[in-house]
Parts: sequence; C-alpha cells; structure tokens
Amino acid sequence: MRDVAIIGCGMTKFGRLEGKGLMDLLAEASLRAIDDAGAGDRDFDAVYVANFAAGELTRQSAIASALVDQLSLLPAAADRVENGPASGGSAVKMGLLAVASGAYDLVLVAGGEKMTHVDTNVITGIVATLSQPDVEYVHGVTLPSLAAMFTRLYMQHHGVTEKHLAMVAAKNHANALKNPYAHLQKAVTIKEIMNSVMIADPLRLYHCCPISDGAAAVVLCPADVAKKYSDAPVRIAGFGQATDTHAVHEREDPTVLKAVQLASKQAFEMAGLGPSDIDVAELHDAFAILEIAQSEDAGFFRKGEGAKALEEGKTALDGELPINTSGGLKARGHPIGATGVAQIIELAWQLRGEAKERQVSGAKRAYCCNFGGFGNNVVTHILERMD
Amino acid sequence: MRDVAIIGCGMTKFGRLEGKGLMDLLAEASLRAIDDAGAGDRDFDAVYVANFAAGELTRQSAIASALVDQLSLLPAAADRVENGPASGGSAVKMGLLAVASGAYDLVLVAGGEKMTHVDTNVITGIVATLSQPDVEYVHGVTLPSLAAMFTRLYMQHHGVTEKHLAMVAAKNHANALKNPYAHLQKAVTIKEIMNSVMIADPLRLYHCCPISDGAAAVVLCPADVAKKYSDAPVRIAGFGQATDTHAVHEREDPTVLKAVQLASKQAFEMAGLGPSDIDVAELHDAFAILEIAQSEDAGFFRKGEGAKALEEGKTALDGELPINTSGGLKARGHPIGATGVAQIIELAWQLRGEAKERQVSGAKRAYCCNFGGFGNNVVTHILERMD
Repeated sequence: MRDVAIIGCGMTKFGRLEGKGLMDLLAEASLRAIDDAGAGDRDFDAVYVANFAAGELTRQSAIASALVDQLSLLPAAADRVENGPASGGSAVKMGLLAVASGAYDLVLVAGGEKMTHVDTNVITGIVATLSQPDVEYVHGVTLPSLAAMFTRLYMQHHGVTEKHLAMVAAKNHANALKNPYAHLQKAVTIKEIMNSVMIADPLRLYHCCPISDGAAAVVLCPADVAKKYSDAPVRIAGFGQATDTHAVHEREDPTVLKAVQLASKQAFEMAGLGPSDIDVAELHDAFAILEIAQSEDAGFFRKGEGAKALEEGKTALDGELPINTSGGLKARGHPIGATGVAQIIELAWQLRGEAKERQVSGAKRAYCCNFGGFGNNVVTHILERMD
Repeated sequence: MRDVAIIGCGMTKFGRLEGKGLMDLLAEASLRAIDDAGAGDRDFDAVYVANFAAGELTRQSAIASALVDQLSLLPAAADRVENGPASGGSAVKMGLLAVASGAYDLVLVAGGEKMTHVDTNVITGIVATLSQPDVEYVHGVTLPSLAAMFTRLYMQHHGVTEKHLAMVAAKNHANALKNPYAHLQKAVTIKEIMNSVMIADPLRLYHCCPISDGAAAVVLCPADVAKKYSDAPVRIAGFGQATDTHAVHEREDPTVLKAVQLASKQAFEMAGLGPSDIDVAELHDAFAILEIAQSEDAGFFRKGEGAKALEEGKTALDGELPINTSGGLKARGHPIGATGVAQIIELAWQLRGEAKERQVSGAKRAYCCNFGGFGNNVVTHILERMD
C-alpha cells in the first residue's frame, strides 16, 4: 500500500445557508480544496462524494458525476458514498484506498448536505431511516430518542451527570466561537444549557447538534509527491472501520461502543501509534454523551472516566488532549455527508498550524471518529504532520 | 496493485418478487455468493453495497452496515455506493481497489433494489432525479424520453431502424429464456415488439427494460489465493470509469458515448487486451438503442456498424461476440443497484463454463459496461478465466 497524504482542504461555512443548493455547496468546498492544493491545472483521476440523503432532501441522485461535470473535472471517475452520518469518513477511506492501491494519483473527496430548507420533523424522520427497521424504526424510534436512552443508561452506569453533558456543549460552543466556519457562534453557559428546552429526556436542545447545510472537501495524493503540491502535507497514518449490531439493544452492554473500540484499534495499529501519541481529536458529538463515550472507547480515557477528564479540563482547548477544537457537530454543525470530511479538515489545519485562535500548539498527530447509525458503523482516521 | 479475483457469485431471481424486501434480497444473493466461494466460515474484511434509492423506495438508509449485521459478518467494514444505474459497477470497482491496495483480503460486493411495490410513475420520477436538474429534470425529462431522443438522433445519423431496435429486444428475450434468473422469460417476435405500446416515440414497451426487484453479489479476494476458495476463479483483468457532461445536449455529438469509449479504453489498456480478444460481453441495454451504441463505443464495431453486426447475427448467442447472454437489462431485468453486479456474475458464469443452455463455448475473456445517468458515468470491467 502506498502512503497517502492530504494536500488540500476546503469547506463552506456551515449553517443555514439560504440560496445555496447542495451542488453549490459541494462545488464551493471542492474548489477551495483544489485551490488549496494548487491543483487547479491538474487532471483529477477520481472524485468521491459523501452524501446522506440527496434523493430525499434535494431530489437529486448520482450527484458524484454531476459534481465532476460542474467542476469541469471530466472525465474523472465519480462515486457517491452513503453511510449514514459516517458517509464522510467512508468517502475519505475510499479515496485513501484508491490512491494507496496505485490506481489513482490525484483524488478529490467531497462531502455535503443541504438540510435546512426542509422541515425539522421531516429531517428527523429521514435520519431515523438509519435505525433498525423492524425493531427500532417501526416503533417510532428517532436518533434523539436513541441517544436519550443511551445517555440515561450511561448516567446510571458511569456516573455521568446532566452537568457533564452541559460541559461538553459549553466547551464546544466556546471552541466554535473561534472557528469562522462553525454554524453556531455563540457562547452558552452551563446554566443556559441546563435550562434549554427538553428534546428527549435527559437531552436538552443544547445537548444536540443543529441541523445544518454545508460541504467540505480534501485532495489526496501519494505521500511521496505531496510536497510538490503542499508545503505542509498531512499523512493519513492509519484508518479503521467497524460495524456493530444494528439494533442498539442487542449489544451486550449498550454503553460500550464496540465499533469505536475496534475501528480505533485498527487505526492505531496501522499507524503504529497509541492514544497517548495523539495531540488533538475530533469526535462525533451529535449528542453530548457521544463525545464522552467515544473519548473512552477510542482509548483516550478508561471506561467511565471520560466525564472526569472533561471536568478536569483535559479535553479543553488548552488541555492535554483537546477534543473538538472545531466546535464539533454540536457547534460547527452537522450537514450529515460533510461531517466526516470536515473533521479531517479541522485536524489537517491543526497539524498544519493553521487553526489560528484555536490552534493546539505543536500538534503533530491527530485522531478522528466518524460515527454512523447509532454506532453500528464507525470510521476512524489518524493523521500525522509530515516534517 | 495486487491482482484480484472473483471467487463467488450469487443472485436472486430478478422479477416482481412479492413478499421480499430489499434487505431480504441482498441477504439472499450475498449468502449464495458466500456459499459459492466456500467462505461461510471466513471473516470478511469489508462489504460494499450498491443501491440506487433505498431511502426513497424502501425508507431505509445506511443499508451496508445493516446488511453486515443481517449476514452476521460483524465487524466487517461496510459502505454503500450510489452511482445511479452504474452503482453495481462502482461497488465492484471499490471492492477491487480495496483488495488491490492490500487493505482487505476478503470482500463481499452486493447490489440490490426493491422497486415493484412502488407505482411505475413514482419510479420513473425517482429515476429522473439523475438527469441534469437545471436543464433536464426541471423540464420534465425522464430517462425514457432522453433515450427516445437519443434513439431518434441515432436513427438519423447511423441508419438504425425500428426493426434493429426490435432485433435487440428479440435476441435478449430469447437469451433470457435460457436464464432461470431472468425477470422476463417469454419469447417475443419482431412483429410483437414493433406493435407493442409506444412509451416515448420511437421507443415501444419491448424496447425498454422492465422495473424489477432483485439482488446480486460477488466475493473478491487476491488472485494469488483464489484457488484456495474456488476451482474456477475469474480474474478482474481491467477496469475503467469515466464521466461525461451531465446534460446530454452539451455533448459535441450526442450519439457518441464518450464515457463508454474512455472507460473501455482504460479497461483494455489495463488488461493488455483489445476488443477482438473478448469472447462474450454484457452491455447496459436499459433501452434497446444502448446495446447498439455501446457495442460501437466499446470498440467491438465501428461507429454506425453496430446495427449491421446485430443483423448479421454477430451478437447472437452463437455469433462471434455474443452480447447479453443473460437477457440483458431488457429481459433479465434492471433492479438498478443490482444490475452492475449481475452483469459481472453472468460473465463469471460464462468464463467458469456454468452458463448452461446459454454457454458461450470456450469463453476465456469477457467485457461489461455498466452505464450510469444517461452515459455521464460509465464503469467497465474485463474479466479473464484463470487457468
């Protein structure tokens, strides 16, 4: 397998982006990434597009080839990847494998979703289609309700409190204030969070990610030619991907995110690194509890000790392992297909020293977790600065 | 790049399969493929699932991880690929690259679609979402209408007649009669075809593929270990993929399928072969004219001479290059996500000498063309018997 590097990053602002359609967003992010890579005059071999529900939300299918045409990258190969909320991570992995195989030398990976033009209840219903159809969906389970049950169980088993959940949200809102691409740019206090409207007991409004529009894109090439494009390429040192039972209640201990454990182990083994080598991480905090749970199951903290680490400030911007410096899904926003790619971009910017006010000083190695379904499909990546 | 082989093939019958859902079909085809590979006791590394519109048609998303759970293949990596009617070819290519890269050693690729439970007009509307949104879809263009305009132009430029179109259909219906997996198992005469109801002038009912349910799956592994699984593995000798303009009218000569030309050239170059080396081919005859056009643009016949070759019986089961021995999309059926995988299976069976009544004697090398959008995304593969 050839080593693969990220040589270009670009994203749109996330948010309620009126007047911009899905293809506009994908094109904007892609052009920024291509420009960042200085590859505007190059022939791209392939384009991978991550998107969750273009058919349902924007009445368009086969968007990967549409994007290639719109970007004037004909006749590049085009594929769309859909893997629920892990679509972005999946697409990056596919681009990675395509370059690693030797088949392609220059690949664009773009992820995007246009959501805010559709009623929130409709969105919630569409997102719920990733739950288990016969024992979850059919009973009216939605992602917030699954997350609420998971949170309640986590509180019982691991001593997590409503205040801990609020601390995740407050931290990530504070980080997002320093990220011009973030959807929610507003500081919120623990009190405000704990008094916000109840969505699915015990989850309140500020414990949940917003519904966002946005897109993100990266350019990949073989690591050995990366410096021809970029002064600061970032190597993809490892990846992992694992599935778990579709129905959450079938898991031996539903508070254990087994797919996060396995996918993280794979990525660390491939990179020849361990959790203590990581300087900055992006976790999939679609709901506040998930940041705590993933910080444990990825191996950064022992099971049941994630909340304590949060409390001690270890995951804060100036802590020993800053988590979700971008603001996370919580505050950067969660345009579903874009998220996994945006996580990678935040980390690449950190490793390139370009994260400005939210820069983690001297960051060399980064980890990210893109979490699909309710943890039944997880994609992880480990990135490393190339010096 | 490692050489990759197909070691297992399985599919459901195509047709109007009442009482079977999308996941049932995908599971049935997958289990047959795994059984065919003798890999029931092995750990699969990854599963790629091709599907066009599960969200719209069956209200389910993230089906790849769902399938992994249903097949008890946890924790295999799972990804869904959507590339319009080329989804199946795309998924096979992804599986191929994943094994070729060295990342994975045992991969399942499954494609499927459940369509017949939905009203035909709704299906036509959903399929139309792959047309160009601003200059085609918005004006009410559907795939049959695009194909009709393409056919009319082809008739004008290249002397194709309504009778030629009927000959494609008659041939493929005759082939399907010998394929127990085919949706339509009924001989039709040229006269019946030419008197069938008009769908989009000049295309009549029997010039168009039916709407079908079905699934197909293959198992891939590195070629150097293929004989551990299969007595008759089939090597994927080459692949190609190319995009063209989204709007058909933007093409210099709309009767030229440029993406077919490019993707075929790529596949032949990779395989070190030319069109004359091919013994049997599956082309994407969603509409009769496409078999003729693709037989030219793939390089088997000169532009404008495909209809003559058909007339001379060259593409018949006993001709020099039998095309669509399976019955093609025309008569085997076209469950969209399944088609590209089913094409590969028909060719693998031909190369393994297992095509029974429709066996092409001594077939060693095969070509297939999976055609997405209206030719804006084409995936080709060349298969070779491993002796």
